[in-house]
Amino acid sequence: MASLVLALDLGGSRLRAAAVDADGKLHHREEVATTSLNGTKAITDRMIAMSRSVLDKCAGEDILGVGVSSAGPLDSEAGFIVSISTIPNFFDVPIVAILEDALNLQVTLENDAIAAAVGEWTHGAGRGVRSLVYVTVSTGLGGGLIIDGNVLHGRRGFAGHIGHMSIIADGRTCGCGNRGCWEAYASGTSFTTRARERVAQAPNSSVALKGDTLSAADVFAAARTGDELAQQLVDEQADLLGIGMVSLLHLFSPERIIMGGGLSHAFDQLHPGIKARIERGAMPAFRDVPVLRAACGDDAGLIGAAMTVFRRNS
Amino acid sequence: MASLVLALDLGGSRLRAAAVDADGKLHHREEVATTSLNGTKAITDRMIAMSRSVLDKCAGEDILGVGVSSAGPLDSEAGFIVSISTIPNFFDVPIVAILEDALNLQVTLENDAIAAAVGEWTHGAGRGVRSLVYVTVSTGLGGGLIIDGNVLHGRRGFAGHIGHMSIIADGRTCGCGNRGCWEAYASGTSFTTRARERVAQAPNSSVALKGDTLSAADVFAAARTGDELAQQLVDEQADLLGIGMVSLLHLFSPERIIMGGGLSHAFDQLHPGIKARIERGAMPAFRDVPVLRAACGDDAGLIGAAMTVFRRNS
Repeated sequence: MASLVLALDLGGSRLRAAAVDADGKLHHREEVATTSLNGTKAITDRMIAMSRSVLDKCAGEDILGVGVSSAGPLDSEAGFIVSISTIPNFFDVPIVAILEDALNLQVTLENDAIAAAVGEWTHGAGRGVRSLVYVTVSTGLGGGLIIDGNVLHGRRGFAGHIGHMSIIADGRTCGCGNRGCWEAYASGTSFTTRARERVAQAPNSSVALKGDTLSAADVFAAARTGDELAQQLVDEQADLLGIGMVSLLHLFSPERIIMGGGLSHAFDQLHPGIKARIERGAMPAFRDVPVLRAACGDDAGLIGAAMTVFRRNS
Repeated sequence: MASLVLALDLGGSRLRAAAVDADGKLHHREEVATTSLNGTKAITDRMIAMSRSVLDKCAGEDILGVGVSSAGPLDSEAGFIVSISTIPNFFDVPIVAILEDALNLQVTLENDAIAAAVGEWTHGAGRGVRSLVYVTVSTGLGGGLIIDGNVLHGRRGFAGHIGHMSIIADGRTCGCGNRGCWEAYASGTSFTTRARERVAQAPNSSVALKGDTLSAADVFAAARTGDELAQQLVDEQADLLGIGMVSLLHLFSPERIIMGGGLSHAFDQLHPGIKARIERGAMPAFRDVPVLRAACGDDAGLIGAAMTVFRRNS
């Protein structure tokens, strides 16, 4: 009889469930588009239904508990999700209580970036180290921190909002209401917005015809084929990522920085610019810390949520 | 027979030693000006002599070990001090090995800001919490972090260089070689430099005659007596401190921020401006975190260095 954890990953666009074993292997994985579900109850009902479906397939196995990774902000201590920006009217959902009532299993809630950091630490690019900073660059810019072998949570589980570190005080307005946040400059959304603005002023660019449909992937593809403006945009983005990473090196002194999220698909194109900024901005003792691409892909959240439960039970 | 720890605190200007008990009480305290000692060997010899003097007075007591707090940068894992900017020719000193050889006791080395953070946590303004950020604002700007009940060290014990988080990327040149660091804007040195520059352009200020002898204390005193420029300088300094603290709230989610160092003597004058910036810049869930003045004074390093040893032996 193997010990398994039921893992759920509630993202802005996808809801995933699987049984995860201690080696990080996924079993009976299910996935659905979050956007296909209408309203808070439809989402929590589907989470319960998917959980039961996975649990049914695990009959006879020992289920240690349930680990939930979710977009946020969320309060992992109190067990509720404050909101998820891409899901309308999803506010203050006591997800831990809802799932515990329905499943009669102990439920642990974790911020998705922290869960992904744990996934990378136990089964990805962070294996074998005691300290790492995980940076996810997608719509927003978030992170998860593991220092000296401990996952950082802080008050209410709110640690790791690395995207809301100011890199240019009183600069660009951020979605959080403050100005000058790293996220306002270096998130995938910021990158795409900047690219569209700049391409609109450069009718000769190979991607000019894309207009407002221009995506981050388009810019990276154009840079690969030698488009000068696209390469410049990629270089600027790498530099903006590097600026924040220099601060993270000085703050946390990790052994590795691991980059995940949508923009990590173009990691090879961003890496030289990131390293150049670190070489220039970090104090000498921090310059040799490697920046690596995340290795767990879309399953980092499921694996990390499960590992959080295994770790608490070990 | 009480258990005691021999604590040493090597600062840029003062060298202190004492026996510390588990309650954080200091016994047989000794202190000397570091600047009165000429050369690396004179300093380490004096550290040994002061240690022996304190130990002699503790005859019959159980000495658990030696805790050393030191200015840095230093490598607390390897046990050596890289350099101390105010002490000429003090480079790569293997202080742990030197003291262990001389005293035949186990020696633990800790960065002075981390030691002070531990002191505040166990016996000062941070008692009873699991997560705090300690910020020390003096010549430089440093910090120590305690999150979820753990002291953060990171690779080589280098975590907590909070003064070298960029707040205005590519801004003012910092002593570390990078540009835009928080320290370059908000350290005590930066405050005094800015004050001298601004006062030089304001011949009517009540502190104009001070010229290049103008100190931080002069500016705070003038602000208290209603000097407009001095008040403006204090407000700007508080805002610059607040900018960095907003980032620290988002990064670490502490229950408290504790401010020590020379500028904390004017904490009451800085606190309103710091809180105003936090109110404006922090996300709602972080705004109620209190910012407190450090409570251990000059002994935070000695107490923290000792508590590090007690904690490792408990």
